[in-house]
Amino acid sequence: MKPSDLIDLGKRAQSASKSLGKLSDDSRKFALDQIASGLESNCDNILLANQRDVQIAKDNSLNSASIDRLLLDLNVLQSMANDVRTIAALPDPLAEKFDERTLPNGLNIARRRTPLGVIGVIYESRPNVTIDISALCMKSGNAVILRGGSEAIHSNTALVNLIKNCLDSSDVPPDSIQFINSPNRKIVDQMLEMKNYIDLMVPRGSSSLVHKVASGASMPAITGGIGVCHMYVDENVELDMAVNLARSSKVEKPYVCNALDTLLVHSSVASAYLPRIVNVLTENDVEIRCDLRALSLLGNPSKPNIVRATDQDWGIEFLALRVAVKVVDSLQDALDHIDTYSSGHTDVIVTENTAAAARFLNEVDSSVVIVNASTRYNDGGRLGLGAEVAISTNKLHARGPMGLKELTSYKWTVEGAGQTPKQA
Amino acid sequence: MKPSDLIDLGKRAQSASKSLGKLSDDSRKFALDQIASGLESNCDNILLANQRDVQIAKDNSLNSASIDRLLLDLNVLQSMANDVRTIAALPDPLAEKFDERTLPNGLNIARRRTPLGVIGVIYESRPNVTIDISALCMKSGNAVILRGGSEAIHSNTALVNLIKNCLDSSDVPPDSIQFINSPNRKIVDQMLEMKNYIDLMVPRGSSSLVHKVASGASMPAITGGIGVCHMYVDENVELDMAVNLARSSKVEKPYVCNALDTLLVHSSVASAYLPRIVNVLTENDVEIRCDLRALSLLGNPSKPNIVRATDQDWGIEFLALRVAVKVVDSLQDALDHIDTYSSGHTDVIVTENTAAAARFLNEVDSSVVIVNASTRYNDGGRLGLGAEVAISTNKLHARGPMGLKELTSYKWTVEGAGQTPKQA
Repeated sequence: MKPSDLIDLGKRAQSASKSLGKLSDDSRKFALDQIASGLESNCDNILLANQRDVQIAKDNSLNSASIDRLLLDLNVLQSMANDVRTIAALPDPLAEKFDERTLPNGLNIARRRTPLGVIGVIYESRPNVTIDISALCMKSGNAVILRGGSEAIHSNTALVNLIKNCLDSSDVPPDSIQFINSPNRKIVDQMLEMKNYIDLMVPRGSSSLVHKVASGASMPAITGGIGVCHMYVDENVELDMAVNLARSSKVEKPYVCNALDTLLVHSSVASAYLPRIVNVLTENDVEIRCDLRALSLLGNPSKPNIVRATDQDWGIEFLALRVAVKVVDSLQDALDHIDTYSSGHTDVIVTENTAAAARFLNEVDSSVVIVNASTRYNDGGRLGLGAEVAISTNKLHARGPMGLKELTSYKWTVEGAGQTPKQA
Repeated sequence: MKPSDLIDLGKRAQSASKSLGKLSDDSRKFALDQIASGLESNCDNILLANQRDVQIAKDNSLNSASIDRLLLDLNVLQSMANDVRTIAALPDPLAEKFDERTLPNGLNIARRRTPLGVIGVIYESRPNVTIDISALCMKSGNAVILRGGSEAIHSNTALVNLIKNCLDSSDVPPDSIQFINSPNRKIVDQMLEMKNYIDLMVPRGSSSLVHKVASGASMPAITGGIGVCHMYVDENVELDMAVNLARSSKVEKPYVCNALDTLLVHSSVASAYLPRIVNVLTENDVEIRCDLRALSLLGNPSKPNIVRATDQDWGIEFLALRVAVKVVDSLQDALDHIDTYSSGHTDVIVTENTAAAARFLNEVDSSVVIVNASTRYNDGGRLGLGAEVAISTNKLHARGPMGLKELTSYKWTVEGAGQTPKQA
C-alpha cells in the first residue's frame, strides 16, 4: 500500500463520514442488525480465513495465549453478533441535547451531540475488536479506519468484507469502514501524519504502540490501556470478601490491563489475611513478590513462587500470573503509594468503613475507582456501555471505558429572533 | 528564567493542584471573593503598573487598538472584580455526579467531575484575561501557569501579586497561580515540552501562536479562536433583521474572532438586501469585497471601499473592517460554501423558514451554529458560562466557549459488596 493509497482511503472515509453523520438512528440501527445477521449466516468464510491465521501463527510458534486470543469459533461469532445487536439497541448518542435553556434575552441555547468524523484505530490480535469498534463507530455516526494486527489479517479482512456486503442493503456508505489490508509497519507512521483525514487516533495494544501514538500523532489521540492496578485491603474488612476480590482480580484474566498488580494490606489485618490470600494465589500458580514485612508475617517461607519484592516491582503492569504485596500502616500510606505508583487506570479499596471508602473515592485520581468489587469492572461492557473502543487513562475528553458518548463531540446551537449583544 | 526555574514552577503548580483539588467549593469561593475585593481596594498599584506598560507601548509606537486593549482604568478593574464574583457564584463544577445508576448485579456506578490538574495558558494583550483565567481555574480546582504577552508584563505581574496576597487569608495555596514573569520567547517552547507538569495547554492569541501550540505541544492542547464566520441571508427573511444582524456582527468588534467575515445572500433577496446592507456597512467604514453577481446587482459602483472579491477572500479571517459578499442560489449552495471555507467557529442563518433553520442547525459542523442572532454570541459570558478560557474549534473535549465544566475531567466510581464478574 503506497502513501497515496492511504490518503485516498482517508478521503473516502472522510466523505463517507459526512453522509453517515446525517443518517437517522433507524438507518444506522438497520445496518447494524444486517451485520449481526450476516455474522450468524456467513460463518464459513470467516472461519476458513481464521484457520489460515491460526495455522500461520502455529507455524511461527506463537505462544498458546496469543493463539487463543486469535481463535474464532461458532460461539465467538455468535457472541460478536450479540454484541452488535446490543450496540444497535443502545439509545442514539446523536439524539442527545443538553444544557438547553432560554436566556433572559430570549435566545434559546443548547448543546447537541455530533459525530467526531473519522476515527483511526490501531489494534492487535483479537478479531472481535474489528466488529466491536466498527459497530460503536457506526452507531455514533463516525467513519473508521482500522489497522489490525498482521497475525489476524485474514480473519479481519473476511470480517470487514462481510460488513461491507451487509451495508449494501442499507443507507450506511460502505466507505465508512476502511480496513488497511497490509502488514507494512510503516503504515502506522503514515496514519499518524494524516491529521487532515483522521479526527481521533485510538491505539489498543502494547505499551510501545501506545507510547508511539501518544508522542507521534499529529491529530488528537486517546491513549490508555496500561493498567498498574492496586487493591488496598483496609483494617476494617471482611476477610472472605477481600480474599475473593484479590483472587478474581488477579487470577481470572491475568493478561489484560484491568488485572491486579499490587496488593496493599493494612498491618492490623495482615497476619490474618496474608496466609489466606497467599494460599489461594499460589494454588492458582501466581508468583507473589512480598515486601519484607509481608515476608516476615508469612514466616519467611522458602518457596519458589514467594519471593522478595524489589523496588522495580512497584508501579509495574505485570500482564502475568504475578502480584506485588506490601504491608502499610494506614489508609494514608496506601493513598500515598497509589499516588506515587498508579497508572491512573483502576484502583480498589476493600473496606467496611464508609468514611474510608468515601475518602478513597474522593482522593484516588484514576479512571475507575472502586469500593468492594473486582478490578475487572473497569470494562465498557460491565459498566453498561455495550462495549468499548478502548480504556482511556487520559483526562481530556474521555476517561475510563470509551463507549458511544465518548465517540461524539457537540456543537452549540443558538436560536433567536434578531438579537444582538449590547455594545461593550 | 532558566529551564530549571520553569520546571520548578511546574512542580510547585502540580503540588498546589493536589491540595486545591481537595478543597470545598466554599473555600474556593471565599478565595475568589477575597480577590474580587482586592481588585476594588488595591487599584493604585495596578494602575501604576499599567501606566508603565502603556507608556512603553506608546514609546514603541504600538497602534491605538493595541493600546486600547492594554489600558486599565477604574471601570475596567470594577468589571474584572464583577467577573470574579460572577464566577465565584456559579455552581460548583466539581460537585457534579452524572450517569449514576445501579446495575442489575447491585453495583452502584457514577461519574464524578474532577479537576484536570495544571492548565498552561499562553495569551496576549488584555490584562483582564489574567484575572478571568485565574478565576475559572481556581473555581474548577485547577492550578494554572500563566504566560501573558510582554506588552502587558507589568500589569500582569501586579495583578498576579494581588491575587497571591489575597490568597494568604484563604485555604487556596498561592502556588496554584504561577506567572512567568519573563519576556523570553524561548519559554513558550519550553512550556510545550512540560507534559509531566502541565495537563492541558490553551493558547489565546495570534494564529501563529495557535498553530505553534497545536503542532508542538507534548501534552493535550485545546486550540481555536480562529474564526472565519459566515452569515447566510436566506430567501425568506425579514430584511431589517438581516441588515441589523450583519451590521452588529461586522461593525461592533471587528478585531475579534467572532466577527463576521463572509456574507452569503440568497439571489432572490439580493437585489433588495444588498443596497441596504452595503449602505450601512460603508457608513461604518467597512470595505466590501463582492463577487461578480453582487457587484452587478449593486450597479458596479466605482467606490474605493466596494471592490471585487478574489479567490483569496473566501475562508479568510479578516480581523478588520472588511467583509466578503457572495450571492448564492440556494440553502444548499450556502451549506456547500460553508462546508468548504468555514473554520468551524461560528456560522449564522437569517431566515423566517423553520425548515431551513433546522437544516442549517443540523448540517453546519461548527462550534456554535446560530439562527437569527449575531455571530458575537459565540462567547462564554453571553452563553451563560460566566467567562471563558478560550473558544475551542477542536472537537475533542471542549467545543466553543470553554467555561468551568470544560476545565474538568471525570472519574468513574464503582461501589459494591464484593462483586466479581462472571468468568468469560
